[in-house]
Amino acid sequence: MIKVQIIALGKLKEKYLENAVLEYQKRLSRYCKLEILELEPIRLPEKPSQAEIDSALLKEAEMIKKKIPQNNDVFTLCVEGKPLSSEKFAENIALSQNSGKNLTFIIGSSYGLCESVKALSKLRLSFSQMTFPHQLFRVMLLEQIYRAFKINEGSAYHK
Amino acid sequence: MIKVQIIALGKLKEKYLENAVLEYQKRLSRYCKLEILELEPIRLPEKPSQAEIDSALLKEAEMIKKKIPQNNDVFTLCVEGKPLSSEKFAENIALSQNSGKNLTFIIGSSYGLCESVKALSKLRLSFSQMTFPHQLFRVMLLEQIYRAFKINEGSAYHK
Repeated sequence: MIKVQIIALGKLKEKYLENAVLEYQKRLSRYCKLEILELEPIRLPEKPSQAEIDSALLKEAEMIKKKIPQNNDVFTLCVEGKPLSSEKFAENIALSQNSGKNLTFIIGSSYGLCESVKALSKLRLSFSQMTFPHQLFRVMLLEQIYRAFKINEGSAYHK
Repeated sequence: MIKVQIIALGKLKEKYLENAVLEYQKRLSRYCKLEILELEPIRLPEKPSQAEIDSALLKEAEMIKKKIPQNNDVFTLCVEGKPLSSEKFAENIALSQNSGKNLTFIIGSSYGLCESVKALSKLRLSFSQMTFPHQLFRVMLLEQIYRAFKINEGSAYHK
């Protein structure tokens, strides 16, 4: 069974989002071994300088890179990434799955991800031009992963 | 205070999504009078023909059009709509607000919206090339409306 790892900076705080994640974890258990890894973002002052942001992203990058299993296909989520339809996203997952690869998805903190993490990407993905809170975004990502497995099995979930 | 109406086809079924909506209703009460109107979608067989879909969309359009207050600025959500950043979305809301207009957002059923509804749009919006369940999408829309008010007041919510 394919392993899907989600590395996310920051914790879920809202109960309803926790419940949403639990629901998708349950649904996804038929399709993959899901691991959600929450890392603690580096604390920054309210209005950080660019240098403070860069230094935090660099430290976060070191934490993230230690957690990615070797040979995993890495998908980073970033504003400047490629927008894909759900079908194209599903194709990408099928491609990795068919080559026996496991997957890592990385969701950065509100300041994004260090270029050194993005450079590991098989694909840089953008879900929307809009900015979503990273907590809600985690649910959106789980939904698309679930939808991808449903599309790939030819189910009616996605029509 | 500006009135924001959301017309949505279909009910929320998941408790966690109801709770998410409640949270955003609470947050938005500082910025607008929010009305969420749930309409019952026309029932369709599991694999409907195009004619059955068109007929259902037409009937749904009649229900929807009766509910839109005159002079409201209408935003329809559709895959072929315009993708906007959160900032540009906020600008659109500010423009309507500054001309004393109230807002109507329309989320169709899984088969979308009739062209006759879309034709009423001030703007056809697309949040993503991806397909999201209409229930989760309602939360994503509330989040962006809330973010828009926060952007327009110059708050740090959006950075």
